[in-house]
Amino acid sequence: MSLVVVGSVAYDGVETPHGRVDRMLGGAATYIALAASYFTQTRIVAVVGDDFADEDTGLLASRGIDLEGLERVPGKTFFWAGKYTEDMNDRVTLATDLNVFADFQPKLPESYRAARYLLLGNIQPALQRSVRVQMNHLRLAGGDTMNFWIQDYREELLATIREWDFLLINDSEARMLSGHQNLRRAASTILDMGPHTLVIKRGEHGAILFRRDSHFIVPGYLLDDVFDPTGAGDSFAGGFIGYLAEHGFSLEGDHISRGMLSRAVIYGSVMGSFCCERFGVERFRTLTRAEIDARFEEFRQFTSF
Amino acid sequence: MSLVVVGSVAYDGVETPHGRVDRMLGGAATYIALAASYFTQTRIVAVVGDDFADEDTGLLASRGIDLEGLERVPGKTFFWAGKYTEDMNDRVTLATDLNVFADFQPKLPESYRAARYLLLGNIQPALQRSVRVQMNHLRLAGGDTMNFWIQDYREELLATIREWDFLLINDSEARMLSGHQNLRRAASTILDMGPHTLVIKRGEHGAILFRRDSHFIVPGYLLDDVFDPTGAGDSFAGGFIGYLAEHGFSLEGDHISRGMLSRAVIYGSVMGSFCCERFGVERFRTLTRAEIDARFEEFRQFTSF
Repeated sequence: MSLVVVGSVAYDGVETPHGRVDRMLGGAATYIALAASYFTQTRIVAVVGDDFADEDTGLLASRGIDLEGLERVPGKTFFWAGKYTEDMNDRVTLATDLNVFADFQPKLPESYRAARYLLLGNIQPALQRSVRVQMNHLRLAGGDTMNFWIQDYREELLATIREWDFLLINDSEARMLSGHQNLRRAASTILDMGPHTLVIKRGEHGAILFRRDSHFIVPGYLLDDVFDPTGAGDSFAGGFIGYLAEHGFSLEGDHISRGMLSRAVIYGSVMGSFCCERFGVERFRTLTRAEIDARFEEFRQFTSF
Repeated sequence: MSLVVVGSVAYDGVETPHGRVDRMLGGAATYIALAASYFTQTRIVAVVGDDFADEDTGLLASRGIDLEGLERVPGKTFFWAGKYTEDMNDRVTLATDLNVFADFQPKLPESYRAARYLLLGNIQPALQRSVRVQMNHLRLAGGDTMNFWIQDYREELLATIREWDFLLINDSEARMLSGHQNLRRAASTILDMGPHTLVIKRGEHGAILFRRDSHFIVPGYLLDDVFDPTGAGDSFAGGFIGYLAEHGFSLEGDHISRGMLSRAVIYGSVMGSFCCERFGVERFRTLTRAEIDARFEEFRQFTSF
């Protein structure tokens, strides 16, 4: 079933211990949509400038992604640049040029409104909310946020996530949002804020899915080389929601859906791991569904006992 | 089958955000033996001073631990004190008074020599080796080490672990020993040093078992409260070797033994998690095998998909 993805489409400059790329396709919506496209019909809502290359539109289109909602306006595309530390666990932002993204007002094409699944990438909470209220046929809606919105837009953010089914954030954000250091307590507090499902991403250490009555933990995939972690969290989100959309996940039938949510976390982890194998979105140029399913089986093997 | 544990028996002073205890039973061999005692007949080799309390000997004896190899000499028992950071992921050592432990020469009672399993806690590599060579009926021998021996006693350490079946260390030690930041590469290098099995402990993030042809990853157990992480790694070691000794693990029948090694890692994780629930060894005063087996099943539930 069809999925709408809202967020940034950008150009990134990235430096890691493996090398440096001055300008390449990036942005949260890009990674989410590319990852989700292996599972379900994906429609993107974003804005780019008139410098956005046909080659990049072409990559998205080649994955069958609906670009009707990709608005093109005069000016430059959002640009972000960052540099990773030696162990890849930290990064320093070198540039954030919002450009056309500064005035981004998500416009939902008529053809998108009947979609059943919605993934709101990390943008201003009020904008995330403005999309959510325009969609009346949703089976599952949720998204991501970040420390900036948690600290400076708290009330707006709380009003936004109250209407979400799931929230996908990393561990430090979960601690900041909840005020608890302990992840079990943090999760319990966040599940009182509205979402029935919380996924805490832990980078190389995997992810945890929390629901009111249970949790599921997956360790991170051990890569031989992490080339570039940029987009891994968004690729996780795309794999997670993509798998649920592929299987028509619905909240009815809670017993079945818990297993499905766990498998969605595994597919999220699979997509995040592939993302790190090359710079930027490179890995998605060659990645196949067969490789994805094989890695899913690898997860089963190295976690079963 | 019987297990010999060699290492420190000590008094610890510990401060965590949950409180402070100035002097309580501690030491690697203490935690290893207590944890292993739930699975198999455990015999301890260690030294204490004449200040060692009957109550503490009593706790070890109450768990059926053979204390014939617990030497008592004039002087004070090894004392260690440390303070944990707010997030419990780091600690500062405040005192290390070796006392009678400075002259520790492990003496293996005649009755211990036929034991089939050997766990060498973190002590000087030459002393670990001196015990290993006295035991001729071993099915499985291995142990722990630390950054100090890796840096300043490297050759001695390499000669020691060459004769081990398994090495149990934490991730930073694995990186230091191997010279590789990436854990897969680190493991591959360490498996070339002798041991056929490597267990890398990752604190709250769980553990990884590496063998030449496969690996197994378990995430950490999510505790509501971590009271005191002291001894968690040693409790892990005790659960790991204890389970293998209980089932008479042998290297013959490699296919079977891989599943058993994975389950041993889970039992190690279970024992490490219980250890953190109270200060020092307190949790072992009340812990039952039924609680241990119930938590093993919890691991199965929160990791299965």
